[in-house]
Amino acid sequence: MSEVIARELASHIVNAKLSAGSVLPTEREMIESFDVGRSTIREALRLLETRNVITLRPGPGGGPVVRRPRPEDLGEALTLILQFEDASLDDVMEARRALEPTIARLAASRISDADLDAMDRTVCLILDNPNPEVFQEQNRIFHATLSRAARSVVLQVFVESLGSVADGVAGGVTYSSRRYIAAAQAHARIIEALRAHDADRAEQLMRDHLDEADDYWHKKHKDLVSRPVVWRR
Amino acid sequence: MSEVIARELASHIVNAKLSAGSVLPTEREMIESFDVGRSTIREALRLLETRNVITLRPGPGGGPVVRRPRPEDLGEALTLILQFEDASLDDVMEARRALEPTIARLAASRISDADLDAMDRTVCLILDNPNPEVFQEQNRIFHATLSRAARSVVLQVFVESLGSVADGVAGGVTYSSRRYIAAAQAHARIIEALRAHDADRAEQLMRDHLDEADDYWHKKHKDLVSRPVVWRR
Repeated sequence: MSEVIARELASHIVNAKLSAGSVLPTEREMIESFDVGRSTIREALRLLETRNVITLRPGPGGGPVVRRPRPEDLGEALTLILQFEDASLDDVMEARRALEPTIARLAASRISDADLDAMDRTVCLILDNPNPEVFQEQNRIFHATLSRAARSVVLQVFVESLGSVADGVAGGVTYSSRRYIAAAQAHARIIEALRAHDADRAEQLMRDHLDEADDYWHKKHKDLVSRPVVWRR
Repeated sequence: MSEVIARELASHIVNAKLSAGSVLPTEREMIESFDVGRSTIREALRLLETRNVITLRPGPGGGPVVRRPRPEDLGEALTLILQFEDASLDDVMEARRALEPTIARLAASRISDADLDAMDRTVCLILDNPNPEVFQEQNRIFHATLSRAARSVVLQVFVESLGSVADGVAGGVTYSSRRYIAAAQAHARIIEALRAHDADRAEQLMRDHLDEADDYWHKKHKDLVSRPVVWRR
């Protein structure tokens, strides 16, 4: 019964388009409107809290507030499963190399000029200032813009969760400025293929780019590649 | 502080290879061994419970028990995110079409004879009895064996979570026996390519198989393909 109520509440939040922070009816009001006992409502709310749908503010004047599950939540769930399955950064990179070329292929027919311009800017910023801080931020924007442009919610959620796992393991690794420039040039070639709506070429260039990064990591950061994935919030 | 303790407990469970059901020290014992207050331990345990690492058995004689996060947990987290992002079965199928050909490619060089034999059996069982129950079960085993054989934890977890979402939306759809036979024959061709360790061919045949299924769904089950993803446990 509590599961039925939890599902109803989740559907209500989606259908009424309630945004994060919206205050839901109190426990007392729900007991009345659903006509069930307090323990059933409590169980339903607790289930929704564990699934990141709501948060329960404690204390007087507290109560259920909409949170909405977010793509980042999947990154955390994934990290934990990978830690328990003894996975390494290498496994994460392999999955990225499987997903991102397909994302580039899909984006080639779906991307907007605004997104292409945004991606162009990330390339210019890296070339102007090939340092770790600029690269990390602009590289993230490049890949995030591309994965949004593919208009595939599932692939976007997957690849973003891989990104969050990889950042957790590999964060803080720096390269030479020559390497940042080479990466920006690879990005520029991918943008060119996307602008020409050349799906085959965009896919292939993304594959080359990731293969090259993978080779580099295996050569220069062997310890990091085999480092186990460990959960942190 | 509670997060640090939660991480330590998670690492302890992984490193000591504690299996699901293992009883952890009581709250009182943890207060002593970590030398922190009761509320900190409670918060740490509650965090681990929401992340599916442990369950907290209620009542006297209760306490923390190892659960371990499982690939299915990701399926549930994904379903919820997709519901909140207004995704449809079509989005799920698109992601599957991106992942499974790559899985077939990887499996071509990594699969064992035992796995190939297990996949052969699923084909025979469908051909012997092309009915919905046999097909659903043997189709599931075929794809699960393949995704295990690719030896990529991340891709396996992703594709299994897509399978669990798709089953929730599309469960109960039945086809003609002619269609089950055609699917089994497509599976047989994929197995043949895997046995020959022909990665290109395995990838292409899996792509053809999924494209064909996708065409069929769009022609015959248009309503289902656009059906929104809805969370259920």
